[in-house]
Amino acid sequence: MKHILALIDDVYEDLELWYPKLRLEEEGWNVVVAAPALERTYTGKHGYPCVSDAAIHDVAAEDYDALLLPGGFAPDKLRRDPKVLELVREFQEAGKPIAHICHAGWIMISAKVLKDKRTTSTVGIKDDMANAGGIWMDEPVVIDGNQIASRTPKDLPAFSKALVDMIASVSDA
Amino acid sequence: MKHILALIDDVYEDLELWYPKLRLEEEGWNVVVAAPALERTYTGKHGYPCVSDAAIHDVAAEDYDALLLPGGFAPDKLRRDPKVLELVREFQEAGKPIAHICHAGWIMISAKVLKDKRTTSTVGIKDDMANAGGIWMDEPVVIDGNQIASRTPKDLPAFSKALVDMIASVSDA
Repeated sequence: MKHILALIDDVYEDLELWYPKLRLEEEGWNVVVAAPALERTYTGKHGYPCVSDAAIHDVAAEDYDALLLPGGFAPDKLRRDPKVLELVREFQEAGKPIAHICHAGWIMISAKVLKDKRTTSTVGIKDDMANAGGIWMDEPVVIDGNQIASRTPKDLPAFSKALVDMIASVSDA
Repeated sequence: MKHILALIDDVYEDLELWYPKLRLEEEGWNVVVAAPALERTYTGKHGYPCVSDAAIHDVAAEDYDALLLPGGFAPDKLRRDPKVLELVREFQEAGKPIAHICHAGWIMISAKVLKDKRTTSTVGIKDDMANAGGIWMDEPVVIDGNQIASRTPKDLPAFSKALVDMIASVSDA
C-alpha cells in the first residue's frame, strides 16, 4: 500500500487534484488531501468541493511515498507557509516522487528545489521557473530525477501515468 | 485506437465525465463528448466547463466502441431526446460497452435496456431502476453483459477500471 500526500487550499484546480487522486486510488493506493485546516470543505477554481483529510501542520513527509501538488491559484497561498516548503524539501531530500502541475511550480520555486532541473508549468509562470534555475520545457510531462512536471489539465493523462509509474517503481515508505 | 462516445448536457456531474474521459485518454484512446449543440461550452453541476466535440444528432453508434453516460442532472434532459435513446439501444444491440453512473440510469430506463439486468445507480433513483426491471445492487460497480454501472463519484476508480478493461477486451469498431 502506497500513501500519497496532496496539498490544497481554496481555488485549487479541480481536475489537477481529482484526476490524479482518483487515478492513484484506482491503483489501490491511499491519497491524503492536506489543507490549512482539517475536515474543512475547500472549493476548486471551478467550484468542485473537497473535504480535507488532514491539516498541513499535522502531516509528516516520512509517512508518505510521494507528494502531489495540484495547480490553480491555491499555490499562491501555499508557498507562503514555511511548513509547506519544509515538506517539499523533505520529499526532495529523500528522493521521493514530487508531481507538480500548472501553477504549482510556484511552490517548487519557493522551496528552492528547481536549480538545474528540467521542468515545466503553465506558460504563465515560465519566467518564474527559469529565474529559479529551472530548465523550462514546453512538453506535456517533464521528468527529472524524482520530479514530475506538467503544464495544464490537458496533460493530466500523461502526468498521472508518469506519477503512477514512478510510485510503483519505488519501495514502500 | 478505440473511440468512445460520451453524452452530456448542462449540469453534468463534473468528475463523472472528466475522470473516465481523461482515464480513457491515458490509454491512448479517443473520447468524443457529444451534447445538444456542437462546440458549445457546457457547465458541470459544480461548474467545470466542457466544450462539446460533436452534436448528438450528428453522431452514429457504429463509429464508436463504447458509450459513456455521466450523471448529474443532465440525464433528466438527455432522456427526453429520442436520438439519445436510439443511440443507447444501438450500443446495446451491438453488445458494445455502455457505462452509466449515478443519475445516468434514467437514460437506461427510458431506452428500455435494463430488464432483468443487474445494475446500480445513485440511491436516489433505485426505485426507478427497479421499476424498469433492473436488479438494483448496492455495490461500487455492477457489470452485466456489456453494461457497467456505478453509484457515485466515489466509485469512479472502480467504474473506470471496469470500463478500460471491458473496452480493451473487445475488438476495434
